[in-house]
Amino acid sequence: MGTIGENSQPSPNSVADFWAVIPAGGAGTRLWPLSRAAQPKFLLPLTSERSLLQQTVDRLSAVAKPEHTLVVCGPGHAVEVSRQLPEVPTANIVVEPLPRGSGAAIGLAAALIARTSPTAVMGSFAADHVVVDQVAFVRAIHAAAIAAQDGWLVTLGLTPTRPETGYGYIERTDDVVATSEHGTVFRAERFVEKPELAQAERFVASGRFTWNASMFIWRVDALLAEMRRLLPTLHAALLRIADAWGGADHDEVLAREWPGLEDVTIDHGVMEHAARVGMVPASLGWSDVGDWHGLGELMEADELGNCGVGERVMIDSARSVVWSTTQSVVTLLGLDDVIVVNTEDAVMIARRDRAQDVRQIVGELKRRARPDLT
Amino acid sequence: MGTIGENSQPSPNSVADFWAVIPAGGAGTRLWPLSRAAQPKFLLPLTSERSLLQQTVDRLSAVAKPEHTLVVCGPGHAVEVSRQLPEVPTANIVVEPLPRGSGAAIGLAAALIARTSPTAVMGSFAADHVVVDQVAFVRAIHAAAIAAQDGWLVTLGLTPTRPETGYGYIERTDDVVATSEHGTVFRAERFVEKPELAQAERFVASGRFTWNASMFIWRVDALLAEMRRLLPTLHAALLRIADAWGGADHDEVLAREWPGLEDVTIDHGVMEHAARVGMVPASLGWSDVGDWHGLGELMEADELGNCGVGERVMIDSARSVVWSTTQSVVTLLGLDDVIVVNTEDAVMIARRDRAQDVRQIVGELKRRARPDLT
Repeated sequence: MGTIGENSQPSPNSVADFWAVIPAGGAGTRLWPLSRAAQPKFLLPLTSERSLLQQTVDRLSAVAKPEHTLVVCGPGHAVEVSRQLPEVPTANIVVEPLPRGSGAAIGLAAALIARTSPTAVMGSFAADHVVVDQVAFVRAIHAAAIAAQDGWLVTLGLTPTRPETGYGYIERTDDVVATSEHGTVFRAERFVEKPELAQAERFVASGRFTWNASMFIWRVDALLAEMRRLLPTLHAALLRIADAWGGADHDEVLAREWPGLEDVTIDHGVMEHAARVGMVPASLGWSDVGDWHGLGELMEADELGNCGVGERVMIDSARSVVWSTTQSVVTLLGLDDVIVVNTEDAVMIARRDRAQDVRQIVGELKRRARPDLT
Repeated sequence: MGTIGENSQPSPNSVADFWAVIPAGGAGTRLWPLSRAAQPKFLLPLTSERSLLQQTVDRLSAVAKPEHTLVVCGPGHAVEVSRQLPEVPTANIVVEPLPRGSGAAIGLAAALIARTSPTAVMGSFAADHVVVDQVAFVRAIHAAAIAAQDGWLVTLGLTPTRPETGYGYIERTDDVVATSEHGTVFRAERFVEKPELAQAERFVASGRFTWNASMFIWRVDALLAEMRRLLPTLHAALLRIADAWGGADHDEVLAREWPGLEDVTIDHGVMEHAARVGMVPASLGWSDVGDWHGLGELMEADELGNCGVGERVMIDSARSVVWSTTQSVVTLLGLDDVIVVNTEDAVMIARRDRAQDVRQIVGELKRRARPDLT
């Protein structure tokens, strides 16, 4: 393994010394049977020919060169990640031995970047989200980077489009941390866990709350300083791991340190308690493609609201999603608002408003000891 | 081809000199995608390991030996019929060149039987129905055979269990044609086409109407005499065909006569106008397995009313039929009263109360010129 970022060249489109970090974890159970443990959501081409991971790298290429792009993934996905991203240098694909939460994954990435570029600005973006408005996305990153240069930990806060109860929210103050032609960063007041509906409705109406999609921008030294303060044990272990990374004792140190790492998200472990947290409100046409209902909303529908992939016959059916990856024809008769997914080894049919509960099917298959299907 | 019924031995269980005729036609389009033109309903093992055709022969073995059992089928099914019924002599599998309705099929069978056994009693029974009560079935045949010996054309009338609008009905008189320990044959008053619901309800309430499932018992000479009177052209042609059947000019006569045969059902062409028509009311636990809803009713359901074939996961779903012939697991989430059928090349999902309209799917696939799927 080489050193991350060596031979990097400045790029006219990039934020100066900007690094993109993409934690690529999570199976996306609610997109079963298409997503599986071995074929997680981020590796799937769901909304274009490119996988969500590839689209994420493509999107970030406007601000970070491949040499400044890190992907953190698990050992089971390293090969597929490396094949999907031939432009990303080998050393930039960071393989965690075991999942230990985004605190460890993102903290390690920051520590690795800091080895060669201790005051670099980095942004962290999930590997399995969709952003439709690329221009707004780049603008928000530029706006955030200005505050990040000044030591703030900045989140991209997504302007809510509905009173969603499935996401966390961030409340902003009126204190302006930084403002530029790209946008305004406000001091954040607090992070709020998934709210009840009435609370979510108040949040949306207030205009002061945004969705937290765990899109963060900071200077790596600023993050590491807050981690040292808030998660000192994790911070120390990550520094020891980063110090050994790619060297002769890489495997030994990883085997000793990694299994015992504190399992904590960067949101809970750092952002909710950090001293100087900023937030840029942004409307990005964002989706976490969280379930089949959400994926259906990203697809082009016909006049009856049906959409899908693969050959299908729809008779007296509306607002349904049919996704088939086999040669089979899928036919739907007299059913509205359903989701049908057909793969080589499974057929899943769900009422569309139960899309969140697809994970129950995966749970049942795990109880039946069917690793081939999960 | 040999002569039908040669070397036949009397059997202790059979009605004396009773012949069973099984017209095996119709694709059973409403059971798509399991049933296809090349794999019609009667060839499928739907309610047991045995196909509906095999079950029909099994059922009739109580009254007719294999040597006295005739199956009339189309050229596309002759091979599969002969393989499914190794006990039926080769000469008893009567292959029609083209479908010409049950008048031609059953009339030919009667004429062929009459060549060696001119006063034999024969019964005609569809190849794709289910009868649960075998004892009642045999009793009804015995009861009917007594009237048939006396020259009556007798139908087995099924005591209706609901005001079904999809079947024809037969009204009986109070005139007793024959009575025995097996049952009573009444003189039939009239055949009625598929009624409106209100009419069907009156029929059921009256106690005088039964369903017509085209189960007929008669002496072959009695049927042929009525055909000569009512359908003289068809009758004459069938006699010419029967005369040539199995002989040197079999193919030549068939090629000349068959395409021009009048296409008429035995119900419309003969029974509705015949002079001496009897009817035995019978409760047989009968089903025509007409669609997936009906097939589901014949299957063993769990406490939620779900039934099926193949591996499946049902979450918050009730009263549904899931039939999978592949290795795929089929999962249903939050949907009641649906039918799911999964085969190697098609997935069909329908609201259960639209089961009759499955033929619309087949129609659409025909419009798309997909003979592989129909």
